[in-house]
Amino acid sequence: MRTTASTALLTDMYELTMIEGAVRSGTAERHSVFEVFARRLPAGRRYGVVAGTARILDAVEAFRFGPAEIDYLAAAGVVSEETLDRLAGYRFGGDITGYAEGEVFFPGSPVLTVEGTFADAVVLETVILSILNHDCAVAAAASRMTVAAHGRPCLEMGARRTHEAAAVAAARAAVVGGFAGTSVLEAGRSYGIRTIGTAAHSFTLLHDDEEAAFAAQVAALGPGTTLLVDTYDVPRGVERAVAAARAGGGELGAVRLDSGDLVAQAFTVREQLDALGATSTRITVTSDLDEHAIAALGAAPVDSYGVGTKLVTGSGHPTAELVYKIVAREDADGRMEEVAKASASKSSMGGHKVAGRVLDEAGRAVEELVVATSDVARARTEIERAGARALQVPLVVGGEIVEEHRGPGALEAAAQRHLDSRAELPYQAWRLSEGEPAIPTRHVDLDPRDDERRAR
Amino acid sequence: MRTTASTALLTDMYELTMIEGAVRSGTAERHSVFEVFARRLPAGRRYGVVAGTARILDAVEAFRFGPAEIDYLAAAGVVSEETLDRLAGYRFGGDITGYAEGEVFFPGSPVLTVEGTFADAVVLETVILSILNHDCAVAAAASRMTVAAHGRPCLEMGARRTHEAAAVAAARAAVVGGFAGTSVLEAGRSYGIRTIGTAAHSFTLLHDDEEAAFAAQVAALGPGTTLLVDTYDVPRGVERAVAAARAGGGELGAVRLDSGDLVAQAFTVREQLDALGATSTRITVTSDLDEHAIAALGAAPVDSYGVGTKLVTGSGHPTAELVYKIVAREDADGRMEEVAKASASKSSMGGHKVAGRVLDEAGRAVEELVVATSDVARARTEIERAGARALQVPLVVGGEIVEEHRGPGALEAAAQRHLDSRAELPYQAWRLSEGEPAIPTRHVDLDPRDDERRAR
Repeated sequence: MRTTASTALLTDMYELTMIEGAVRSGTAERHSVFEVFARRLPAGRRYGVVAGTARILDAVEAFRFGPAEIDYLAAAGVVSEETLDRLAGYRFGGDITGYAEGEVFFPGSPVLTVEGTFADAVVLETVILSILNHDCAVAAAASRMTVAAHGRPCLEMGARRTHEAAAVAAARAAVVGGFAGTSVLEAGRSYGIRTIGTAAHSFTLLHDDEEAAFAAQVAALGPGTTLLVDTYDVPRGVERAVAAARAGGGELGAVRLDSGDLVAQAFTVREQLDALGATSTRITVTSDLDEHAIAALGAAPVDSYGVGTKLVTGSGHPTAELVYKIVAREDADGRMEEVAKASASKSSMGGHKVAGRVLDEAGRAVEELVVATSDVARARTEIERAGARALQVPLVVGGEIVEEHRGPGALEAAAQRHLDSRAELPYQAWRLSEGEPAIPTRHVDLDPRDDERRAR
Repeated sequence: MRTTASTALLTDMYELTMIEGAVRSGTAERHSVFEVFARRLPAGRRYGVVAGTARILDAVEAFRFGPAEIDYLAAAGVVSEETLDRLAGYRFGGDITGYAEGEVFFPGSPVLTVEGTFADAVVLETVILSILNHDCAVAAAASRMTVAAHGRPCLEMGARRTHEAAAVAAARAAVVGGFAGTSVLEAGRSYGIRTIGTAAHSFTLLHDDEEAAFAAQVAALGPGTTLLVDTYDVPRGVERAVAAARAGGGELGAVRLDSGDLVAQAFTVREQLDALGATSTRITVTSDLDEHAIAALGAAPVDSYGVGTKLVTGSGHPTAELVYKIVAREDADGRMEEVAKASASKSSMGGHKVAGRVLDEAGRAVEELVVATSDVARARTEIERAGARALQVPLVVGGEIVEEHRGPGALEAAAQRHLDSRAELPYQAWRLSEGEPAIPTRHVDLDPRDDERRAR
């Protein structure tokens, strides 16, 4: 849902208290580089999928502390008046670069890089991670499902299984991952996604009998509609459905199966439809599907899949495990310095990073090359020299949003980009079983850090 | 986030096409009863927790098809002009009753009952399920975590791991489940929840050294703040933290541990703090906690828990598996009739239901009694006669919202109600291991349905 409401309070309180502290120590204006990356992919996954980029751009634009936000912060005593004054004038003036929406990523890929003063960049952490962790999780599940579906259309129907606003974002992310439509109307309005849906069991049960329900639906939606045939008895439902469409002047568009053994039912229903002469009538299935169930239906005569719960909850991994870490910042003398947490676990690699995907002669991806440096131009040359495809694009430049990444056509472009990026991966990427990332990530540090400085 | 924007498009398209069909068959005005229930609890869970009731009331109130919604539906060709005219005048005029927020529930519990014309009641399905499936999932996880924490405060910090609006609802649901605060500011503004948070690793890394970071934080937030001590070396961090607070004029409020072996670290950090004389300084831990990790920390000297990912994703069960089914409706002669899907799987029990929790002499819950009937008054008498505590309360009466369930104090009341309801359950309810629902559900049908009618 694109919103004009402020996104500034979709923020963890500590982002603001950190600004308060940084103002106190005179470090709030230090130029800083934050990076979004995943330490690992969710267990067994072969690749991640970038989604939510356009929503991030909307959220950054709407990230303003208006009177209502300032009043709340003042009343709650979150930060000092001086800091509130500063926040009241907030407008992100830095740069954001990132993997374009739809691109696949791997552990350590610098999915998004946010540069600006510390105060400007730190405060975007929560909302950027919320968007990316949610949308990337759904897009990754969607991608696995569309791989499993081998070209048969997949349709998103999970709104009722997730938060009402998350549902709208999930529909969008599903399209990035290859889905062809959604049940939820707000996603149609907000993102121009095709909406689908005809009737539930309640519609059949509302009527005195199944014939009356089917006749009403055909009268309202035409014979090309999809009739749900499993409220009472499937074979009788199929017979009545075909008859209702013909009485309405045409051949039935499709039947929907929402329960039972879908593989077995698909075969018997297809046989029955063909025996009735309804050879053009399609079969859509919608019951508790995930990528494995879709794969199992591959040999069955099914024409499309409606997916709910498992899609919107990331098929077992509802969050993409992305983090937002400071990787470089100005020192007291104005020089940029790599920084990273140094204690035992959750350590990370400092430095501003430039990334490329190394391809072999056949154009197949072989490696994610991630170069850390204070000299971005030099890193870009390294990437080029390695024959790698550059992965980062400018999304916000000096506070100005690059409209191409959220305007009309951006979602379609992201879906196509995902198809292309996924097609570039080696065969093992498309396997549904658990395994290692499809390609390894190689880190190169052009400015090896003085290790003594780590333990300050 | 309480919103004044319309919620009407947070709706699956088929709700509107069903209205279109029902208008066509003259059944749109049939009085209908829809019920929200769970066929089962998520695997191994002992009880469910009702959360989101206040948000549902807001969503029902804001469920209006304004010009913007109608224009979209017209342009997309979702339904006919006649149906659009009908929708433009939509305002829910029926009744909603339900388990009060915070109450526990079991398989088959009639968590929410929506009564009205078919057209009025069916259209609320998607948004009601979205809210309940999300909020109940988070509240159930929160409840397990607060059980495991044995009275130590649990704090919600998961905003970055879930959709940005879901995060706000999750913070609210966490409070229903016993949490004491949240990191996300919008939840503070929208629901009056106490917000918490001080600084991340990035704040320490921003500064030239750890001492400078700690000094800045103490200067900004006072010595009672919580200092994050694991950026470089924990023992040195603890020493510096205590010193920084004292230099700032007081004893340090708390140290936070966000990585490593938390159990072992809690003991050594406690010893170190005590040795430094900082006996009042508390220890808070925040790394990848779930109810099992919290339980494992029970014997360690930890003072509070900050929980992120696992809380907002329902600790393995991100959706509560609630469904919204028509259970009774008027027939052609104006009499109410029980209805239910009759085919092999996903069958359900028809009939308007009244529920009570049967308690033994010690006031301990022994059974969920669910009485299906067309005579609600008679069912209430049955519940009373069984010595059961009535579970359903009016939430919307003739379209008017019962303000007590969303007004100031409603969230606090829900949290207290949850404590009371959980305390009433037998001991096995509080076990974290997988098991059966804490009490069985007994269904009684006062109007046994003519089985011949099922196969229509």
